[in-house]
Formats: sequence, C-alpha cells, structure tokens
Amino acid sequence: MWNTPDMPPQRATLLQVAQRAGVSRSTASFVLAGRHQDMRISEETRLRVLRAAQELDYRPNLMARSLRTKVTKTIALISDTIASDPYAGRAIHGSLAAAVAHGHLLFIGETDGDPVVEERLIADFLDRQVDAFVYASMFTRYVRLPRPLRERPVVLLNCLVRSARPTHRSIVPDELTAGLTAARTLLDAGHRKGIYLVGNPGNGVFASRERLTGIKEELATAGVRLAGIVDCNWWPDSAYDAVCRALRDGLDPKALICLNDRVAFGAYQALREAGRSIPDQVSVISFDDSELAAWLRPQLTSIALPHYELGRHAVETLLGPSAEPGITRLTMPIRRRHSVAKPAVE
Amino acid sequence: MWNTPDMPPQRATLLQVAQRAGVSRSTASFVLAGRHQDMRISEETRLRVLRAAQELDYRPNLMARSLRTKVTKTIALISDTIASDPYAGRAIHGSLAAAVAHGHLLFIGETDGDPVVEERLIADFLDRQVDAFVYASMFTRYVRLPRPLRERPVVLLNCLVRSARPTHRSIVPDELTAGLTAARTLLDAGHRKGIYLVGNPGNGVFASRERLTGIKEELATAGVRLAGIVDCNWWPDSAYDAVCRALRDGLDPKALICLNDRVAFGAYQALREAGRSIPDQVSVISFDDSELAAWLRPQLTSIALPHYELGRHAVETLLGPSAEPGITRLTMPIRRRHSVAKPAVE
Repeated sequence: MWNTPDMPPQRATLLQVAQRAGVSRSTASFVLAGRHQDMRISEETRLRVLRAAQELDYRPNLMARSLRTKVTKTIALISDTIASDPYAGRAIHGSLAAAVAHGHLLFIGETDGDPVVEERLIADFLDRQVDAFVYASMFTRYVRLPRPLRERPVVLLNCLVRSARPTHRSIVPDELTAGLTAARTLLDAGHRKGIYLVGNPGNGVFASRERLTGIKEELATAGVRLAGIVDCNWWPDSAYDAVCRALRDGLDPKALICLNDRVAFGAYQALREAGRSIPDQVSVISFDDSELAAWLRPQLTSIALPHYELGRHAVETLLGPSAEPGITRLTMPIRRRHSVAKPAVE
Repeated sequence: MWNTPDMPPQRATLLQVAQRAGVSRSTASFVLAGRHQDMRISEETRLRVLRAAQELDYRPNLMARSLRTKVTKTIALISDTIASDPYAGRAIHGSLAAAVAHGHLLFIGETDGDPVVEERLIADFLDRQVDAFVYASMFTRYVRLPRPLRERPVVLLNCLVRSARPTHRSIVPDELTAGLTAARTLLDAGHRKGIYLVGNPGNGVFASRERLTGIKEELATAGVRLAGIVDCNWWPDSAYDAVCRALRDGLDPKALICLNDRVAFGAYQALREAGRSIPDQVSVISFDDSELAAWLRPQLTSIALPHYELGRHAVETLLGPSAEPGITRLTMPIRRRHSVAKPAVE
C-alpha cells in the first residue's frame, strides 16, 4: 500500500482566512486578489489578511477560480515526437523557462504524427481548459494545424502552415542564412575549388533544402560553384560509407559542408582512414552544433540549431503582447572551432 | 493581433444535450457518467442522449467535475533539470507513454535543484489539483522529498530517499549489476590482466560508485584484480588527456572499462593516436549506451541506461495498482558490439 491517503490534505478555505483575520469573506477575497485600493481596504486590514493567509498556508483553488475567469494559466506543448532527437530536451527547457517567467505551467504531449492521437490529445487538453498551445515539430516542416486549434491562441514551433497569407506565428531556425554562413566561412578562409556537400538535400527535408539554397547563393556571389554532392542520409555510418567510396573513386575535396554533425562525424572517420588530415588537407564545416561537434578532434566548426531559443521564443510569443501572424526566423549562430583552415597549396 | 478571440469557442452544456435528447438534465448526466444501469435508464433513452452529445460535440467540463471528484487525471513530473542530459527526452517519452495509457496528461517542471523554485512549482501544481507526482533526478542520487509531496502519491524516478525504512517507491537503474556485467563480459572474453577503469568513481556520483563495486565484486569471484584507475571526469576531453598521459607514462592496458560512453569516446581518440587498435590490442567496454556507442568505429559495447523504461515504469507504478514502498532496480541491458575481443597474445 501507498503511504499516501486517497485524499490530499485539506486546504485552508478563504472563510478560514477571513475568520482568522476578523474580516468578511469578501474583504479577504479582495485583499488576496490585490484589489485593496479600488475597494478602499485599509493597509492594516490588508496586512492582517495576508498574515492569516500565510499562517494557514492558504492557496486559492485555482481550478475553482478558473471556472469563473476561464484562465488556468496552463499551456500545452504538442509535438509529433519528444524523444527521437535527443536535443528535444533543450526546446522543452526553453519553453519551460518562458512559461515559468509568465507564471504558467506546461503540459506536454506527443502525437507520433497520428491525427487520431492528436485529436484525442487536444480534446483532453481542452477538457482541462488549457489557455494556449505550442504546436511543435522536431524537424522543421510544413504542417496542417488541427481544426480544434485554429481558433485558439497557438504558436507554431519549428513548423509552418502553407497558406497564401499567414494565419499564425511560426518560430523556425533561419536555415537559409545558415547555408550562407557556411559558404561564407569557407570563402573567407580562401576556398574556391573542391567544395563538396555531404548529405542528401533532395529528400524533402526542409532544413537541407534551405541550407543548400543558402550555400549555392553565397558561393555564386563569389563566382564559385559547388563541386558536387556526396550523397548519404543523416547518419554517421551512411556518411562514412559514402565519403570512403568517393575518396576511393578519386575524389579530392578541399572542403566538405556536412548537412549535420552526425554526417560530419562519419566524414571525419572516412577522412582519417584515408589519411587526409583535418583541416590541413580538408576543411569540414557542419550544421546543428550538437555536443558531438565539440568532442571531435579537431573540434568541429558548426552552425547551431538554437533549440533552447526556439522553445523560449515560441512561449514568449504565445504569452507576450499579441503578435501578428507570420514567420520568425531565429539566427543560427556559428560556433567557430578548428575544422576550417585555408586550402592546402596544390 | 492574433486571429484568435480572447475566449475559446463556447462549449455545449449538459443542459443543451438534455434538451436535444428530450430528457432531464440529471438523466443526461447519469447516461454520460455510464450510470444507466443503476439508474435504470432505458437503452433507447441512453442512445438518444449519446447521439445528442455527439451531435453537439459535447465534452464534460473536466475542471468542474474535478471540483466534485477531486480527480483531474493529471500528473506532474518534477525534475532537477530537463535539458542537461540530452537523453532526458527519453525518460519523458516513457513517462508520457504510460500516462497516456492510463488516460492521464503530463505536466513537466524543473527546479534547477533550487528548493525555493521547487516549493513554488509544487504549490503551482497543487493549485491545479494535480493527482500525483513523479519526482525525478537526471543523475541517480539521494534526495530529500519536499515536504508538500510527502503525504501525496509520489514515485521517485532515478533517485532515492535515505531512510531506515523506505517511505516511497523508487525506480532506479541497476548500476551494481551493470558493473558485474561489464566485468563478466571481459572475463568471458578471456581477460585476466591489465584491466583498467577510466573515470572517477570517487566523486560522490551514485552510478560510478555502484558500477565500480559491481566490477570489483565480479572480478574478485574470478580471482582477478582491477589493475588500476585512469582518473578523469565524465567528458571526452578529460578522458582523452588522461588516457594519452597514462599511455605516454608506459601504461599497457589490455582492457578499459569506461564509466560512460563519452569517456569511452575520449579513450578511443587517445588509443587511436597512440596506434593501439581496438579491440585487437585493447578491449573497451562502457556504460549508458548513448547514440555515440553505435557511431564509434569499432562500434562500442555498452551497458544501457534504460531511460525510456525508467520513465515508463515510474508512471506505471504511480498509476497502477498500489505498490509497497521500496526500490525497483531496472536491468541495464548490455548491447554487445565490436569493441571487446580476447586479449592479445603477449
């Protein structure tokens, strides 16, 4: 058996507070609602009520109050998945920080991308009179906002609604500028030739498409062309295999732009096995700035996905002064480490 | 401006359902509460009420109901930190899965280990009449359960209360057996000499102390002694530095037991630089089974921290049939990969 009673300890009532302070129930209520000024309650009475409330450990029944005010000061973060990306924790962390700063609590729920689960989950949150919603995706993508959320306060985190004119506020990472930054970093180091992309920008993933567009645009401004693409998926073993094969087939890269740090991890392994040193013979730059980036040798220069900031900004937008519908693109800051150098002399 | 009204769409009332079905409010209420049998309500009436409820998209106001029943079907997961360990997401994932299976929703909150923040957070959850709590730590450790939680349904996740007789149920990973498993794996491969621990088992961390105890016990059963400890903290660069130094100083290990995968990552880098091949010259085994383990070359054999199972089990225990106070130690399964082999012939 639990060492816990079935019922929680009895909480002090407003009436008990009023009796202890020797005032009426409504006077106590006005004091505790901070309405002593407009109700012309004396400072002495106010202090007596506050002292009584403190002595009785009085806390207002927020649920009863919310039946009157329709505000529960709770928000819900609904995500397709919480766990697939180990860095989801940071987005939740940032969301929590902003929620707490606004005196709100945070429900979380995940749908596994299943519309039936999603509908049920939203209904459950609405039953608990959740005030507002963060609708999140772990990978940046286009979504259809579920019908029951359309008329409610919602901010989209890491996702976008496809429509002629925006209906909600979306918070997404600025992937296009991140691509520009990657290319600019290599150009500034003196690279002009033998710049390859490692990854698969053609598989419908929003981030990779935008990154590639930014890379090409920035290279074009300098009259430089991407030398080619080493095609692989998002995982180290795929990148390792692809880069090994390319090197065996005679590829002679001066710089690799890897679509994320896991891809860079596999590329590092392949370059090392082939005896190519980083960054003296081959520069490597990447995206995400996961923990991995700082652990590699040499440490990897990477353009950060600001998970924490995305979460924080979404909840700030939701609870702050009302915002116009539209898209907020958060800067992806570059973390310069030791994997980019000037090109080797031929 | 938001395209959202300040008030959520009006929900259908019980009275509207009753009127549409042509029954009294209390009859509608009994039907929707599933009490048609004890209230002797005809099947025909029952179906009429259900149809009316469906047509009006009626959902009971759970908050109003909870004022009567004192049950909100919400639980809160209170953690010292959500984000410091990127795998916290998995524990939340497991907790969510179990909560949903029991028809509950999950609040999360973090305290940063600050008792003042914690007290405030718990008060906020109690204001929303949360039914039950998971009190979680990201690193296994002893805690003092906050006073307001002591008389309520609580399960401890990844932490323990120090007391003569247990007062609550704790769910923790079985670190001691994990230590036994690591040692047994090396013994079974034929290792008897040159087995070193890499990490710091003396810094008060519960996991490392228990792991070391298990390792020593199992080695002792085979008459084998740990050859020594290569001291470093929990991060790759510290492990890299420590192993590099030890090898330069003449250390000739046959097997390294690394206290986690990040330590193993640094040890791999140091062994590679020193030209020692894994596993032919040096076997490596580790704990945690983070994603890293499968990405290393050769892939790392590691004993898994079952984050998802810990979270799932904690919530199952909280919401399932009542459990005796005590400690549940969840198995840490070994993931055998390619970093352990028989010792090199001298």
